[in-house]
Amino acid sequence: MAGKKVLIVYAHQEPKSFNGSLLKITVEELTKQGCSVTVSDLYAMQFEPRATRNDIVGPLHNSEAFNYGVETWEAYKRGSLSKDVVEEQKKVQEADLLIFQFPLFWFNMPAILKGWMDRVLVQGFAYDLSKAYDGGLLQGKLSLFSFTTGGSQEMYSKGTISGDIRYILWPMQHGIMHFCGVKVLEPHICYAPACVSEEKRKEMLTAWTQRLKTLWKEEPIDCSPEWYFK
Amino acid sequence: MAGKKVLIVYAHQEPKSFNGSLLKITVEELTKQGCSVTVSDLYAMQFEPRATRNDIVGPLHNSEAFNYGVETWEAYKRGSLSKDVVEEQKKVQEADLLIFQFPLFWFNMPAILKGWMDRVLVQGFAYDLSKAYDGGLLQGKLSLFSFTTGGSQEMYSKGTISGDIRYILWPMQHGIMHFCGVKVLEPHICYAPACVSEEKRKEMLTAWTQRLKTLWKEEPIDCSPEWYFK
Repeated sequence: MAGKKVLIVYAHQEPKSFNGSLLKITVEELTKQGCSVTVSDLYAMQFEPRATRNDIVGPLHNSEAFNYGVETWEAYKRGSLSKDVVEEQKKVQEADLLIFQFPLFWFNMPAILKGWMDRVLVQGFAYDLSKAYDGGLLQGKLSLFSFTTGGSQEMYSKGTISGDIRYILWPMQHGIMHFCGVKVLEPHICYAPACVSEEKRKEMLTAWTQRLKTLWKEEPIDCSPEWYFK
Repeated sequence: MAGKKVLIVYAHQEPKSFNGSLLKITVEELTKQGCSVTVSDLYAMQFEPRATRNDIVGPLHNSEAFNYGVETWEAYKRGSLSKDVVEEQKKVQEADLLIFQFPLFWFNMPAILKGWMDRVLVQGFAYDLSKAYDGGLLQGKLSLFSFTTGGSQEMYSKGTISGDIRYILWPMQHGIMHFCGVKVLEPHICYAPACVSEEKRKEMLTAWTQRLKTLWKEEPIDCSPEWYFK
């Protein structure tokens, strides 16, 4: 889909990793389609994950007791969030599609990516009073969580001790993206790339390339509790 | 329970916050009981949440392609993890009870606390090949997630758009603590302290003090999918 803008938020330390290969494919394939692709390579940027007073330039709204949520909301309104946060917000604002590419760490995204969510998606920018979920401020955008796991697909099935992989997706897809009004495409999960054959790894990369070719025709998932816990 | 060792991992920027008050109560009450209490005040420590090559002192196991999981596992075995990680591991090793005190950020813990999980609970220390869940390496310890929310209790009920609060607890309690063999006590949730009356806030603090008085008599939850998704 020529002209579409894509932001890839990428959280892996090593370009030669399987996540690095997935990123490379995404950039190449979407660029070939005529999309405009931006990558936030969080480790390479040494992105700050900590939510601190440094995110507000100049005086605080209430310097007596620091409240990160209130202070960043106020700072957003008066245009005094720190430069690195503002830059990420601009990328989000312009994007039609957000792709998150990362290895699953502890049933969740790595801290550096969680920090991107914590610091970039502030009140006033991504949601507001009574402007959440389908009324969220980032309506009209799509998102896709693409990640690798340590365990196999069988290990993340309903009835096993690790449970259905969808349980893990609830806080990320629903609690963050849907909360901001962003529609969610089917996640793309590469199970245990470190434990399979080179041939299987190549198949996984090919499958991702193939999916990207028809990505813009996909319908978002029904991001409701039923999808996750049925 | 005199003699018990408690580690509180605390993630709030402001001592005057409601989380700060909960921390203060925990330290005072448990100290009064004769427990030995240690606090890891993550923001005050400027704790590093990013999982990087800096966590390994000296040469890498494989410098051709950096794999954080492999490198920290190897570094743990040869005693060459970075000083800040080793210090936290020592605190965990000594503790009978781990209390995590934080404000819920995006259906999850703040990035700085997620970074503590990512960097401290490495393979070899917290779990190992076939040593996970009830066989996890941190067996014999208890954990308790104590947190505040922005939304009300009604907003986090089954059937609402934000879903049951227990859905959110799955990756933290089950995916991290249970995975490492740590038993999980009932979470302690203070709903929307910023939106209630001063009287209600005091009641919430009193309720926490009261709970702490009989904490050591509590039975862990049955940390299985049924508890979360029944």
